[in-house]
Amino acid sequence: MNYIGVDIGGTSVKAGIVSPEGEILCSGATKTNVDCGSLSVIGDIANLIGELLKKQNAGVTEIGGIGVGCPGAVDGENGVVLFSGNLHWENVALRDEMANYFETLPIFVSNDANMAALGEATYGAGKEYGDSVLITVGTGIGGGIVIGDQLFEGNRAAGAEIGHMVIRVDGEPCTCGRNGCFEAYASATALIRQTRRTMQSHPESTMWKTCKTLDDVDGKTAFEYAKKGDAAAKAVVEEYIRYLGEGIVNIANVLRPEVIILGGGVSAQGENLIKPLQKYLDGHVFGKTKTARVLVIKAKLGNDAGIIGAAELAKQRTGKQNYHQ
Amino acid sequence: MNYIGVDIGGTSVKAGIVSPEGEILCSGATKTNVDCGSLSVIGDIANLIGELLKKQNAGVTEIGGIGVGCPGAVDGENGVVLFSGNLHWENVALRDEMANYFETLPIFVSNDANMAALGEATYGAGKEYGDSVLITVGTGIGGGIVIGDQLFEGNRAAGAEIGHMVIRVDGEPCTCGRNGCFEAYASATALIRQTRRTMQSHPESTMWKTCKTLDDVDGKTAFEYAKKGDAAAKAVVEEYIRYLGEGIVNIANVLRPEVIILGGGVSAQGENLIKPLQKYLDGHVFGKTKTARVLVIKAKLGNDAGIIGAAELAKQRTGKQNYHQ
Repeated sequence: MNYIGVDIGGTSVKAGIVSPEGEILCSGATKTNVDCGSLSVIGDIANLIGELLKKQNAGVTEIGGIGVGCPGAVDGENGVVLFSGNLHWENVALRDEMANYFETLPIFVSNDANMAALGEATYGAGKEYGDSVLITVGTGIGGGIVIGDQLFEGNRAAGAEIGHMVIRVDGEPCTCGRNGCFEAYASATALIRQTRRTMQSHPESTMWKTCKTLDDVDGKTAFEYAKKGDAAAKAVVEEYIRYLGEGIVNIANVLRPEVIILGGGVSAQGENLIKPLQKYLDGHVFGKTKTARVLVIKAKLGNDAGIIGAAELAKQRTGKQNYHQ
Repeated sequence: MNYIGVDIGGTSVKAGIVSPEGEILCSGATKTNVDCGSLSVIGDIANLIGELLKKQNAGVTEIGGIGVGCPGAVDGENGVVLFSGNLHWENVALRDEMANYFETLPIFVSNDANMAALGEATYGAGKEYGDSVLITVGTGIGGGIVIGDQLFEGNRAAGAEIGHMVIRVDGEPCTCGRNGCFEAYASATALIRQTRRTMQSHPESTMWKTCKTLDDVDGKTAFEYAKKGDAAAKAVVEEYIRYLGEGIVNIANVLRPEVIILGGGVSAQGENLIKPLQKYLDGHVFGKTKTARVLVIKAKLGNDAGIIGAAELAKQRTGKQNYHQ
C-alpha cells in the first residue's frame, strides 16, 4: 500500500504519493497562503492531495495513511502544531483538521526536520546505518534523530532541537531567546553575518573589492573566495567549519550515532565541507580513535526527504498508535 | 530469578544480588587494586560475587545473569573496556574475562553512568516516567539516557557523554582534550576552582576570612557561605547554577526527556539547587511553556543506583542479545 507524505514550508507545501519502498510515485506543490490562516492552508493541502490521487487514478482506499511534516514545535502525540514562527500558527489541531478531509485515513504529524531525518535514514544517505542524526543547515539549523530506524522525537515530539544547543554561553543572540546557540554560529545566516563582518573589517580583501556591496553576500560567498585564495574568506570558512564542527562533536558525544548526515543549502559545498568536518570530528570526539567512529556524510534526497520521511512515518505507525479515529 | 549487579569504581568495586523488582538482597564491596592490573581486579570481582552467593546461600543456577558497570569508554556490544582513565585499563575484554569465572551466566557490560541512569529510571527517581536523563555531577559529569525504559547507549555504548558537550567554545580546558565542556564548568571540580578563584579575588569576603586556606574548599563551601549571606559566595553559586542550567537546557532541547535526574555529590544541595535549575530550564528551554515541560528532580538511589541498574540491564537483556556463550 502507498502512503502520502506532506511537507509544509513557509512558502510552499509539497506532497507526494510514496511507495512502501520510499519511491515518490507522483508529487506536487502549492503556495502556502500563510496570510489566509491555518484552516485555509489545510484546505489547500487537502486539495493538493486530491489532485495527486486523481493524477495517479488512485482512491483513498488505496492509501495506507498520511504523514505531515510541519516547521515549529509540533506535539506529535496529539497532532497539534503548538507554534510555528514560519506559519504564524499557534495551537493548530493539524491532525484533526486534516481528518475532516480524510476521515478514513490515519494521519501522523511531526516536525519537518524529523520527517527529513527519517527519510534520509530510511532511503537516503543513512540507509546502510542503524542510528543517524540529520543536521539541516539553512536559514536556521534543524535536526532529527533516528535510532534503530525509528524516529526519536522526545516527549510530545519536542526534542531534536539540535540548533538550540548553546555552544558559547553569552554568545551571539539566537531567535529562540538564548545566547550562543549552535544555530547562531553555524547556520547559513550566521555564515553570511560573519562573511559581512569580515568584509567590512578587511576592505583590502578580494572578497570586498569584488562584491563591493554586502547585499550580494550569501552562504556561498566565503567558500567561493576562499577557493580563489582570498585570506579573509579562508579565515571565515575555517572559523565556520570550526563552529559547525563543535556542534557536530557535541552531537557525537551525546548520541554517538553511526553517521551524522549534513543537509540543507550549505551542504552543497560537498567535500570542501565534509572532509574538514570529518577531520575535526575525528580529532575532538570523546575517546578519539579508541571508540566507535562517527562518520559525517552528505544528505542524498534533497528537497524530497521531507515527503519521503513523512510517508515513511505514516507507514511505520499505521496500526501501531492511536490516531484520530 | 535474581540478577547480579557490579559497579566498578576507581577506589572500590561494589556488587549486589538484586531481585527482579530492583531490591538489593545482599551486597558487598572490595578495594579496586588498580596497581595489580585488570586480571587481578576481575579476579577480586569474581571472589566478591562468590562471597555474595555464599551469604545468600544461592547457587549460580539461581542467578539470571550479571551486569557490570565500568567507568570510561566501554564497548557494550563486545563487552570490552576500550579505555578507562580511572582504572588505567585499555582494551580489557571484561565480559570474556568475567566469563572465565561464570561460564554459564550471561554477562553484560556498560558504562557506569549508564547503569546508574537505568537504575534511577527503573526503580528510582524516574520510576514514574518513560524517558529520563541522569546527570551525575561529581569530580566530572557523567550521564545516561533512558528512552522508553530502555538504556540508550549510542553506537557501541559510546554515547551519553553529556559532560563532554562544549557549552563555551574556547573556554576552560577539559580532561577530554576539548575546551569549554559542560564538565569543565559544572562539575564539582569546576565549582571548587571557581570558589577558590573568587576567594582570591575577594579577600574581603566572609568566605575567605573564615576559610583562610584554599585547601579546605570543597563543593559545599560556596553553597554554605551563600546561605550565610556572603555576596562573593552567592555570586559563585549563581554562576554555577547558570552553567549547570545551560547544560541542562541543552539536554532538554536535544532529547526532551520527561525528567532530568540530578545525581552525584552536588545534588545533595537538594532544593537549593533543584529549584533555581527548574526555573532556569523553564525560562530558557526551546518553546518555553508552549511545549512539553521537562522536570528536574533529584536522584533517589544514591550509591546503589549503579548496582541496581547493572542488574536491571542483565535482566532486560538476558535472552535478547548475543553474549559470551
